[in-house]
Amino acid sequence: MKDIALGIDIGGTFTKFGFIEKNGKSQFDSMIVTTGHPDIKTYMANLASGINKSLEDLGPDFNLVGVGIGAPNGNYYNGTIEYAPNLDWKNVVPFVEMFKKYFNLPMALTNDANAAAIGEMIYGSAKGLKDFVVITLGTGLGSGIVVNGKVVYGHDGFAGEVGHVMVYENGRMCGCGNRGCLETYASASGIRRTVFELLCDETDDSSLRDVGFNEMTAKMISKAAREGDPIALKAFEITGKILGMKLADTVAHTSPEAIFLFGGLTNAGDLIFKPTIEHFEKNLLKVYKNKIKILPSGLQETNAAVLGASALAWKELERQ
Amino acid sequence: MKDIALGIDIGGTFTKFGFIEKNGKSQFDSMIVTTGHPDIKTYMANLASGINKSLEDLGPDFNLVGVGIGAPNGNYYNGTIEYAPNLDWKNVVPFVEMFKKYFNLPMALTNDANAAAIGEMIYGSAKGLKDFVVITLGTGLGSGIVVNGKVVYGHDGFAGEVGHVMVYENGRMCGCGNRGCLETYASASGIRRTVFELLCDETDDSSLRDVGFNEMTAKMISKAAREGDPIALKAFEITGKILGMKLADTVAHTSPEAIFLFGGLTNAGDLIFKPTIEHFEKNLLKVYKNKIKILPSGLQETNAAVLGASALAWKELERQ
Repeated sequence: MKDIALGIDIGGTFTKFGFIEKNGKSQFDSMIVTTGHPDIKTYMANLASGINKSLEDLGPDFNLVGVGIGAPNGNYYNGTIEYAPNLDWKNVVPFVEMFKKYFNLPMALTNDANAAAIGEMIYGSAKGLKDFVVITLGTGLGSGIVVNGKVVYGHDGFAGEVGHVMVYENGRMCGCGNRGCLETYASASGIRRTVFELLCDETDDSSLRDVGFNEMTAKMISKAAREGDPIALKAFEITGKILGMKLADTVAHTSPEAIFLFGGLTNAGDLIFKPTIEHFEKNLLKVYKNKIKILPSGLQETNAAVLGASALAWKELERQ
Repeated sequence: MKDIALGIDIGGTFTKFGFIEKNGKSQFDSMIVTTGHPDIKTYMANLASGINKSLEDLGPDFNLVGVGIGAPNGNYYNGTIEYAPNLDWKNVVPFVEMFKKYFNLPMALTNDANAAAIGEMIYGSAKGLKDFVVITLGTGLGSGIVVNGKVVYGHDGFAGEVGHVMVYENGRMCGCGNRGCLETYASASGIRRTVFELLCDETDDSSLRDVGFNEMTAKMISKAAREGDPIALKAFEITGKILGMKLADTVAHTSPEAIFLFGGLTNAGDLIFKPTIEHFEKNLLKVYKNKIKILPSGLQETNAAVLGASALAWKELERQ
């Protein structure tokens, strides 16, 4: 019998789940649709029956030992999803309490960036590190901060919102209602906004001048930059500069040994890492210079969220 | 026999020490001069003999159980003082290792702001809190960050340098060599710089127009503000605004339950607390709003540094 943990990644559109061994080997991945379940109970019944079906398919050689859940606005302390703007269930959903009726196992829930940090620690490039930070560069910017081998949840379960530190007073409007937040600059949506600022401010020719705001993706910007497009190149330079600048502030808080960048934008490689590292070093306090690494995540992007969620289960089992 | 801990606060000019009971009761305070000892060995011998003399004076009813040391650039992990700009000893001083030859007791060393945080936890207003931050507003701005009941030292022993997060790109020159650091705005020296900026930008009459830069103190600015001086009032408003803005970023990292402000500038009371709290709340991410307190420190300023250092000793004894 092999022990496996169930990892569940609740996204706005799909809920993915998978069974992962302690060594990171994935045994089975599947998903259900998140949307179209205004009643959480129907959603949960569907999810549980999908999981049970998958467990049956796996056969008797596997032993499910724990459940980890990554969800937007997930609160680790309470096992709740609280006021998640992209989910159908408003208010506070006592997810873990409800889901334990289906699977009475060690179970924990947190947000996806914290789950990514634990994934990095259990399966990825942060094995053995005690103090590190994971930054997820998706549509927004998420962060998981690890101090002394433990994710920092803060007094309320909501610590680690580096996407919402302020870069510029009265800067870009953020989805959170404030202005100037880091994620309005350093994220897939942030770099798109930077491209449009540059299309306005500069006169360089650019293939990006033919693309509407809603159609433009970070992938297109990467492609254009690799082809030498001056606007796209400048956009990466600015994105990296701002990210590096603010990560230096993060170091001034918890002095991590390494910062791992994760998510689509990091596929641009040096285009994003080079300016980030340059401006990171430039802005670090002397005592931190030349000793903190900025590295790509060691998790595969395709199933990282499920891996991270399952890692939360393994971490929970360590505590017991 | 009563157990006492020795607290030592190494400052650029004086080294203060005292013997403190676990309940915070101070039994004896004294000091030696820090300067004029280019050789650390002579300094240490003097310090030890001063301490031994004080111990004798205390009499046989007291039992010294541990030593805590607060020092600029103090590294908790190594017990070292590293490249402290205001001390005579350059490079890395293995303070704890050397001082154990005089007092072979549980001993720990950290910087003064971390010591203040532990002092707040053991004797002050943070008793029972697991997640909080102490900000010391002196000539500079120091910070001690506590997560899960423990000071965050980071991977290298130097975490918690919130005084050096960047407020404005290409902002004011900081002693650290970077520009725009928080402590160039929010500190006793920062508010003085703000007064001079206002004396330049505004045309209001002000008693502060008669004082030279080197002569001006935060105390003078407080006094002028209480008398209704428009420049001084604006300076407090700006200082609080910037401090509140950046403390909101600190919350986005570790989500503390409370932030304690300590040091001379806090004697201005509402003048500093009001704008700080207003702009703090304004800049917080929604999930943190109206639940994180900004409070004055519960430690008396006169011997807080020695108290904090002794608290480090008590904290160390808890670990053993």
